[in-house]
Amino acid sequence: MTRKINAAIVGFGNIGRYVLNALEAAPDFSIAGIVRREKREIPGVNYPIVTDIDQLEAVDVAILCVPSRQTQAYAAEYLKKGIHTVDSFDIHSDIAAVRNELDKIAKAHNRSAIISAGWDPGSDSVIRALLLAAAPKGVTYTNFGPGMSMGHSTAVKAIPGVKDALSVTIPIGTGQHRRMVYIEVEEGHDFNHVKSTILNDDYFKHDDTVITQVDDIDQLKDAGHGVKITRKGVSGTTDNQIFEFDMRINNPALTAQILVSSARAATRQQPGAYTMIEIPMIDLLPGDRDELIAALV
Amino acid sequence: MTRKINAAIVGFGNIGRYVLNALEAAPDFSIAGIVRREKREIPGVNYPIVTDIDQLEAVDVAILCVPSRQTQAYAAEYLKKGIHTVDSFDIHSDIAAVRNELDKIAKAHNRSAIISAGWDPGSDSVIRALLLAAAPKGVTYTNFGPGMSMGHSTAVKAIPGVKDALSVTIPIGTGQHRRMVYIEVEEGHDFNHVKSTILNDDYFKHDDTVITQVDDIDQLKDAGHGVKITRKGVSGTTDNQIFEFDMRINNPALTAQILVSSARAATRQQPGAYTMIEIPMIDLLPGDRDELIAALV
Repeated sequence: MTRKINAAIVGFGNIGRYVLNALEAAPDFSIAGIVRREKREIPGVNYPIVTDIDQLEAVDVAILCVPSRQTQAYAAEYLKKGIHTVDSFDIHSDIAAVRNELDKIAKAHNRSAIISAGWDPGSDSVIRALLLAAAPKGVTYTNFGPGMSMGHSTAVKAIPGVKDALSVTIPIGTGQHRRMVYIEVEEGHDFNHVKSTILNDDYFKHDDTVITQVDDIDQLKDAGHGVKITRKGVSGTTDNQIFEFDMRINNPALTAQILVSSARAATRQQPGAYTMIEIPMIDLLPGDRDELIAALV
Repeated sequence: MTRKINAAIVGFGNIGRYVLNALEAAPDFSIAGIVRREKREIPGVNYPIVTDIDQLEAVDVAILCVPSRQTQAYAAEYLKKGIHTVDSFDIHSDIAAVRNELDKIAKAHNRSAIISAGWDPGSDSVIRALLLAAAPKGVTYTNFGPGMSMGHSTAVKAIPGVKDALSVTIPIGTGQHRRMVYIEVEEGHDFNHVKSTILNDDYFKHDDTVITQVDDIDQLKDAGHGVKITRKGVSGTTDNQIFEFDMRINNPALTAQILVSSARAATRQQPGAYTMIEIPMIDLLPGDRDELIAALV
């Protein structure tokens, strides 16, 4: 094996911590360090902690564990520095545009970016593309949950009178979801008033939403999540081809692992920006290609 | 859209017929014709039928629907003629070697070959690679069936005293299988003797095999098949990540559809030979890349 891939972790929230675990478990990565807004010690972490990636040495790839709205700016900056990037940008409607913007920068600087590399978007996208190729006519349903929705939880927390909140996504079939919303109400606010504000919020008014008041949100938190993707379609002219992909996973752990596997793939692509459906699966994996083909194909 | 991809179907057995259906259903293919050993009319088929691919005009890609042991020779010959190839070569132990041989020829002639493009090897291989990237530690089980096994049926038919036979693969979990073998016994042969010959055959002696005598094999034939791939593994340092892929499909229809999707991908690769885990999923699909990314990622 050649020298290890030297990775920087950018952002050290929930995902960043799991990325550190996945990098330590990988046979072909070294850890250059962690980039944070503040140069603060992290208990139990013995890698350089810096506020600027330039303070780390010989970084091959930056794994962006910052909020989705910030990944594009970080990726652009790092690509210009000659560093490959990978992120789990998850604003579905903007992915194609972000990819095209980063593609120009990546090509101009002879580096690669893999964007939207998590589980949805990410591994689920690969499944959807494969199933479309296997049965071009038909319908694919992506059913999320049960599991916490970070986006919906944040939306609830922003509503006046909500002290803390958790929105759990429950699949009710054919890509439809129920939102089970748990809230702690701030003193001086009325639960029923807060409840009706949530039910009329854009994030919730189109879904089957159930709101429950609780004393302690923290007691409900569980990082487990899941997805069931189904497709029933037509291969050629043959109907009733039935496919189902089902997973039950720890959400941040899977996101982090796919980020790390994609960081490996980023170092193996021609210059440009890619989503996961645009890269070969073998590039996600460590080890000898012939052995991988023998083991997996 | 630019001009359509002009495809030749090579071999017109069961898979070849389904490939014709899939090509007709595809928006971006034209059919150059069918290559067979004998120039025989096929009822209902109005494409040129030839015995040599040189008799067809401007073929971009040849879809090889010949037995597995013949695909390599056909692919080598056609690549040298400047024609991309795709096959569903399914002798797992030889795939890496065949790929490497064809890779040299493809590169020398500036064309691409996609090999082992069916469902296993093929789409199942993509799932296995993706799940390994998602949870690098753990065990994947591929459970086949219930469905007819062509290879095992052929093996039984070769045994003296067997007039016709069908071997059905039944999944019994953790990648183990029962073989339900149905045979018509030739006149003058003893069922129990034939049965013990089968049970001692290399193809069957390691499996749980049940042999039943029937009057008419044809009454049992059903092209349905299935697979369940499971993986329970570790993402980073987080255990108990659980994945399951399940499909119930018409076997030749799915093989043919994946051949056709892969024929499209063959025209989009850099020169070389590839298995499905070495190509991006988006290349299997017709249509605008930005629209595909918006729809699938």
